[in-house]
Amino acid sequence: MAFVKDFKWKHGMNVKELVDSYQNIGFQSIELKKASEVFVKMKKNNAKIFLTFTSNMVTSGLRGFFAQLIKLKMADVIVTTTGSIEEDIMKANGEKFKIATFNEDDVELHEQGVNRIGNLLLTNETYMRFEDLMLEYLNKLYEKKKRWAISDFIKEIGLMLNDEDSILYQAAKNNVPIFCPAITDGGLGFHLYLFQQKHPDFIIDPVQDFGNILLSTSQDENKGVIALGGGLSKHHAILCTLLNGGANYAVYMTTAHKTSGSVSGATTNEAKSWGKVKDESDVATVIGDVTITFPIAMIAALEQLKEEGLLK
Amino acid sequence: MAFVKDFKWKHGMNVKELVDSYQNIGFQSIELKKASEVFVKMKKNNAKIFLTFTSNMVTSGLRGFFAQLIKLKMADVIVTTTGSIEEDIMKANGEKFKIATFNEDDVELHEQGVNRIGNLLLTNETYMRFEDLMLEYLNKLYEKKKRWAISDFIKEIGLMLNDEDSILYQAAKNNVPIFCPAITDGGLGFHLYLFQQKHPDFIIDPVQDFGNILLSTSQDENKGVIALGGGLSKHHAILCTLLNGGANYAVYMTTAHKTSGSVSGATTNEAKSWGKVKDESDVATVIGDVTITFPIAMIAALEQLKEEGLLK
Amino acid sequence: MAFVKDFKWKHGMNVKELVDSYQNIGFQSIELKKASEVFVKMKKNNAKIFLTFTSNMVTSGLRGFFAQLIKLKMADVIVTTTGSIEEDIMKANGEKFKIATFNEDDVELHEQGVNRIGNLLLTNETYMRFEDLMLEYLNKLYEKKKRWAISDFIKEIGLMLNDEDSILYQAAKNNVPIFCPAITDGGLGFHLYLFQQKHPDFIIDPVQDFGNILLSTSQDENKGVIALGGGLSKHHAILCTLLNGGANYAVYMTTAHKTSGSVSGATTNEAKSWGKVKDESDVATVIGDVTITFPIAMIAALEQLKEEGLLK
Amino acid sequence: MAFVKDFKWKHGMNVKELVDSYQNIGFQSIELKKASEVFVKMKKNNAKIFLTFTSNMVTSGLRGFFAQLIKLKMADVIVTTTGSIEEDIMKANGEKFKIATFNEDDVELHEQGVNRIGNLLLTNETYMRFEDLMLEYLNKLYEKKKRWAISDFIKEIGLMLNDEDSILYQAAKNNVPIFCPAITDGGLGFHLYLFQQKHPDFIIDPVQDFGNILLSTSQDENKGVIALGGGLSKHHAILCTLLNGGANYAVYMTTAHKTSGSVSGATTNEAKSWGKVKDESDVATVIGDVTITFPIAMIAALEQLKEEGLLK
Repeated sequence: MAFVKDFKWKHGMNVKELVDSYQNIGFQSIELKKASEVFVKMKKNNAKIFLTFTSNMVTSGLRGFFAQLIKLKMADVIVTTTGSIEEDIMKANGEKFKIATFNEDDVELHEQGVNRIGNLLLTNETYMRFEDLMLEYLNKLYEKKKRWAISDFIKEIGLMLNDEDSILYQAAKNNVPIFCPAITDGGLGFHLYLFQQKHPDFIIDPVQDFGNILLSTSQDENKGVIALGGGLSKHHAILCTLLNGGANYAVYMTTAHKTSGSVSGATTNEAKSWGKVKDESDVATVIGDVTITFPIAMIAALEQLKEEGLLK
Repeated sequence: MAFVKDFKWKHGMNVKELVDSYQNIGFQSIELKKASEVFVKMKKNNAKIFLTFTSNMVTSGLRGFFAQLIKLKMADVIVTTTGSIEEDIMKANGEKFKIATFNEDDVELHEQGVNRIGNLLLTNETYMRFEDLMLEYLNKLYEKKKRWAISDFIKEIGLMLNDEDSILYQAAKNNVPIFCPAITDGGLGFHLYLFQQKHPDFIIDPVQDFGNILLSTSQDENKGVIALGGGLSKHHAILCTLLNGGANYAVYMTTAHKTSGSVSGATTNEAKSWGKVKDESDVATVIGDVTITFPIAMIAALEQLKEEGLLK
Repeated sequence: MAFVKDFKWKHGMNVKELVDSYQNIGFQSIELKKASEVFVKMKKNNAKIFLTFTSNMVTSGLRGFFAQLIKLKMADVIVTTTGSIEEDIMKANGEKFKIATFNEDDVELHEQGVNRIGNLLLTNETYMRFEDLMLEYLNKLYEKKKRWAISDFIKEIGLMLNDEDSILYQAAKNNVPIFCPAITDGGLGFHLYLFQQKHPDFIIDPVQDFGNILLSTSQDENKGVIALGGGLSKHHAILCTLLNGGANYAVYMTTAHKTSGSVSGATTNEAKSWGKVKDESDVATVIGDVTITFPIAMIAALEQLKEEGLLK
Repeated sequence: MAFVKDFKWKHGMNVKELVDSYQNIGFQSIELKKASEVFVKMKKNNAKIFLTFTSNMVTSGLRGFFAQLIKLKMADVIVTTTGSIEEDIMKANGEKFKIATFNEDDVELHEQGVNRIGNLLLTNETYMRFEDLMLEYLNKLYEKKKRWAISDFIKEIGLMLNDEDSILYQAAKNNVPIFCPAITDGGLGFHLYLFQQKHPDFIIDPVQDFGNILLSTSQDENKGVIALGGGLSKHHAILCTLLNGGANYAVYMTTAHKTSGSVSGATTNEAKSWGKVKDESDVATVIGDVTITFPIAMIAALEQLKEEGLLK
């Protein structure tokens, strides 16, 4: 039985010490510490780790951290949405995203050709340069073959990038598949459409990729889901581990609540209904902004795995 | 300049009278009344109405209301996720969804073969009967042609249903396209995959559908977006109206907040940055559970349109 | 066992019909219908009803509804915060509150002497006229006696008002005590302080009022709590019913969630731990903006009580 | 102009390094870094710091951190609610609070005499021992004088405690007043009431304390508000700095949103309407669970102040 302990700051405190203290503070800090422990368990028990995130996290600086985690073998399968693919490519090609506030004058921004995602800004120029780039990529891919499973399509682009901090680059290099079931939901959808107008035999095949994600793991393997944010990417990873017997470990980090019945707010209690997760200590649901909570929890896990010699 | 007015109940009060009162109460009630007015404006100004919703709303009893709205010509384009397609078909085939609470014993539910979505329950039997049904549909569709744009695929199924309360049925009958860019994200994805294993030339083409949604409206037309919940369906509708010059009217109803930078929490202020929406009175963002807020706001709009003879 | 039913709009639909439909829609709509039923039960079983609300609801037009509910004998004890007392008095003296948006230019508002509460506005003039008024009231009260329990102090002011829509007026007329344990937390605190500087024997006694609220009900009586919003007023009502054996009925309506461990987000499940509430059907927690959810749920209850001849 | 930067973990990373990285990640992480900077500014510019928190934070292990901050001269005025006072005294007398989950069986807990606050537990025995203790304290205080301003009453109890980790103890020792305008809102209210029944001349005077909090600072001094959570304590601190010309610095950390018009969700943009805060860089609103966000942000500030020799 654990008890609440008075938290005290010590000069030079590192992130792991803070997270260790969290377990005796209360409310969401306890869940965050639990999340950190589940990350360690996933790795120790050789679970295949499904890392899912929404595209606004790639807009943010978490993008480089995801790339690092792939390199460190902390993610075996990625599930995300189109914005993530697009913005990772943009950044790999040197585009800069500005930091602003949540209360900008949106009419003025529009006049300046600037687009806002929360407190971050992307210019129209960035999108235009991306368009040129995509056309180039599409031509190269089309030369190779006409019908692409989505994850193969993404991998092929990853191999053309040259950026250590790129998710697509690291994933391609480390044989980590990236699944993106709604590939047309972005500017990329428009470029694909224009390309297909000229090349009607060019096919993006989402059905084939459902097989690929299913075969990326098996009933016998341990499986873990790290779902950052909600929506499609979270749902898809849960669905695909479920069809392989369910996840053994699950960490959900989100700002959504379970009271609306949405997948974004669904908790890891649900995970227990999948039939594999038996133990309260193998799941955690952390309510809070992922840009704050995920780095802390994951850093503490990485430090521990490093200390135990379990990190590449 | 409007002022706060003391609200008073009158015996026999109807929904429209309540919503009329809302504009002088305060906080979200004011936004809800505004949403209702924007619904009326969309219709009066012949806007093409994009109605988007997440699949948990089709799990709920809003499903029949969406079907009714299509019949009443209050929705011209539908954007949603796979769960919506699946559960609409299930219901059209007589499946019943039970009502429970948010605090069920999930381990016990699992043992009983019952799946929980918030406070609603679906049984495994329902999913199994759906599987048989899908195989039948897939065989029929495959006989017609091998390569399907997603919205055509959905329409063809709609034509095989026979349920006035079905979204797919009413949409097919009323020539309202249903777009579902992540069609594989559900049990349906698995059935498609199994089918394609036997019939490798069976192709689901999401790229072709991007053209279809773009061509479903034009730069010259007035456009309105009603986004219920967030995620993929909201994003896709905004993206596609944006590529046609932006929406003139927008109502977002959601439980998410703008502080996380997610698309689910993005407000209609953003809509002003699209460049077409100039007037504060043409957009509304209502924070709250859609199962409560949407029926009230839409009923008040329907009553007014009916009174003015603008409803079929 | 209840099932989800397809919702359908019927022309002329009244609020009670809508709320009856809510029970078969899903998610928070089900909780709202349950809340409405618990309101009816409270009244049918002669429960002493504790109605609590935060001051922003008195800023809003719900103020007149609260006054009406007191008149209709739907509230036996009121618990609230100082802002409610102040703004009810302001409105009883003819002050008007303007409606704006959530995104005003706050620096500009300040320069104009205007104060913002969400999307509602109060002017500095309103506060200044209130100050003059309070001085007048304080002089009269001081003449009567020197030491005041807070609820007696509030009642005495209520007797000096003359506004059917005033909470203080209706409460005073109907012998409904208003408890406000943090009476100094507002401009009123400043006026009381200035007055006490001149009259050091003038005493506001919160301790005496704790006795008054305890004695406002008994162990033997049925008790119900309607908590709108969270914080002090919700906590105080729960505490005081708890000391009298616990509430038999409880409805919480709030935008806060249980995940932060705050009283504002505490659910009615907790109420079961009070020991009196045994039945799931006697409690409801509705997540959503009270300006929307409370009128709907309460109107449906009033209509039913009216039909059954149980309303004055 | 700042830009998004890819975040990377480095082995042994300390809390300050993490928070420095936050400023280039995005969304709430940027606000958290800003909060940390505002804490530093408050101290550097000799602002009188008003630290406010809700009682659930004293239930949590943040209690010891608050005591440490008082000792480190990072808080000059405390505003809180009764639960904080009670639980700080309980802990100073050796009571232990257990850690559980958010999903306990509340009926069972009740049978065991256990009370739940989120995922933390207090036993009835703890409350009973507190009652005995309070009677002892009240007798001692009554011997000293009959009429007490609330903050003097709390200070006198603080002087009787002997626990370095106690908020009341450190506040009393360091001449930091603790304001608690709703002192009767807790078990303490009941004990005060019983005591007053025997000693009718025993008076708790909230009005006198309004003067005390006003005089705790002046128009000329720089003032800062750190509001953790919402409700009464946040409102009272803002009100009292406002009456002294407004705060120069403000950090709000909360899980509430501005869309409901509640004080808990009110942002620091509002602070700009107070007239003193001119600069965007002097305010921050961090949405998230305070048990996670406050330690990180404050630790980073303490490290920096320490490095610059500005910390005792």
